Amino acid sequence: MTVLTNRREIQIEFGDCDPGGIVYFPRYFEYFDACTNALFERAGLPKRDMIARYGIAGIPMVECRARFIVSSQYGEKVMVESCVSEWGRSSFSVQHKLFRGDVLAVEGFEKRVWVGHATDGRSRFKGRAIPQEVKDRFAINSATHA
Amino acid sequence: MTVLTNRREIQIEFGDCDPGGIVYFPRYFEYFDACTNALFERAGLPKRDMIARYGIAGIPMVECRARFIVSSQYGEKVMVESCVSEWGRSSFSVQHKLFRGDVLAVEGFEKRVWVGHATDGRSRFKGRAIPQEVKDRFAINSATHA
Amino acid sequence: MTVLTNRREIQIEFGDCDPGGIVYFPRYFEYFDACTNALFERAGLPKRDMIARYGIAGIPMVECRARFIVSSQYGEKVMVESCVSEWGRSSFSVQHKLFRGDVLAVEGFEKRVWVGHATDGRSRFKGRAIPQEVKDRFAINSATHA
Amino acid sequence: MTVLTNRREIQIEFGDCDPGGIVYFPRYFEYFDACTNALFERAGLPKRDMIARYGIAGIPMVECRARFIVSSQYGEKVMVESCVSEWGRSSFSVQHKLFRGDVLAVEGFEKRVWVGHATDGRSRFKGRAIPQEVKDRFAINSATHA
Repeated sequence: MTVLTNRREIQIEFGDCDPGGIVYFPRYFEYFDACTNALFERAGLPKRDMIARYGIAGIPMVECRARFIVSSQYGEKVMVESCVSEWGRSSFSVQHKLFRGDVLAVEGFEKRVWVGHATDGRSRFKGRAIPQEVKDRFAINSATHA
Repeated sequence: MTVLTNRREIQIEFGDCDPGGIVYFPRYFEYFDACTNALFERAGLPKRDMIARYGIAGIPMVECRARFIVSSQYGEKVMVESCVSEWGRSSFSVQHKLFRGDVLAVEGFEKRVWVGHATDGRSRFKGRAIPQEVKDRFAINSATHA
Repeated sequence: MTVLTNRREIQIEFGDCDPGGIVYFPRYFEYFDACTNALFERAGLPKRDMIARYGIAGIPMVECRARFIVSSQYGEKVMVESCVSEWGRSSFSVQHKLFRGDVLAVEGFEKRVWVGHATDGRSRFKGRAIPQEVKDRFAINSATHA
Repeated sequence: MTVLTNRREIQIEFGDCDPGGIVYFPRYFEYFDACTNALFERAGLPKRDMIARYGIAGIPMVECRARFIVSSQYGEKVMVESCVSEWGRSSFSVQHKLFRGDVLAVEGFEKRVWVGHATDGRSRFKGRAIPQEVKDRFAINSATHA
């Protein structure tokens, strides 16, 4: 068994870059968020359908970080590889590696929670157990897929 | 009678600027959107309350335009003057003038609609008549206020 | 002779949408800006190369507008068709049509200037004559290409 | 001696929020970036002047992270407290605490480098020693200021 990995090419746009001529760093978090959604879509769970099917409020971020190794400029294309690196009961972690050619340029990490709408009035969201069938979609059975 | 005008100072941030070192033009539309919301708040209609009170879906844009006269850089402060320039039955127009010091730097124009949620299933929104009491909040009776 | 038209598919991301669940309208201007750059790239003029080759400061916007006909939601894919609709001496206009399936959803219009760095100290940029060879790249000679 | 702390109020705009109705998380990194610039300005080092005065290329991010504890909605005002938490030879760390009323809602952390333009052609930037006079501006001598 191995983990499902999605690869997504991103075109760096002029409007993503700052006066220094390089990608404005918060844009990387936008890229990674889109890559997480693309990973779920690849697993058969496009975000809107998933929210409707499981009656959840979403998969909000509780923690994220990134390490910026090499900068990128507009006009370049980069490749992001994304996978779920850990599953908890109601939370999970996603890892992103952004490559500029062969060079690892940015590493990203997200911790998210599978939440429903809270009913106690004190908070908006409440963690729920992630269904096993959801987790199963991110595992590749090498016996059948290899 | 004269029209209610809101003035809002905006600090140009590094992240609002592009590799040319000037404000990336779509940011002006974000500024103007925030200024329209500030104008409504000034009129006693903060957006979330207004949506709840009148049971509307929002005030989506149907048309907008801008004329860019002088560019601005990060670190600068600019001033935006906003007012409703025209009221229709279910639509209205907002005018923004962004000043860099005494110089008119950007002119913006928005046409928006007062909409409810559509129930016919073909579109998401449906225009509704704007309540007179809403329009009245944007008129200043110079006899009483002067 | 006909004009060069570029078609670009855009995936609407979650982060492009607002609390109403639809694309936040300034994002359309970002899409269109990227589409203009893609049109120039299609014409053999990727932005960074073009700036370097012709020694210009860029092609900043002097005016733009959009008409929003049908809203789009995240998870959807839209198609943008872009072409230069008019050439002036130092300015030009770009037209964008964004389709949601067969439906024209948003129309955009940009007027930009071909500028060098100003040397008189009063403004940052100064319009320059657009080289004929640049304009020629956007015309398709139907005799040879059809 | 204590460290210089800057407090900055941020108005959560409609356009900062996502279809879930809460701040789209990359926006927090934009807020924090603006807060770091505001902290430097408070220390007498507005970004553009600082770059010009010290001949540096900027203070790019090499690492950042955030912990999202409580969500915020548009229409709300939040307060961010920022300070330099650590100085290295050519790098430094900034800590941000975003409060929603009395509640710590988001914690942010940035590691940045003081860089010049590289001259070896392999990378764009090269770390430089941070001048002591820069560091001194972030220390408050309680004997004189208390």
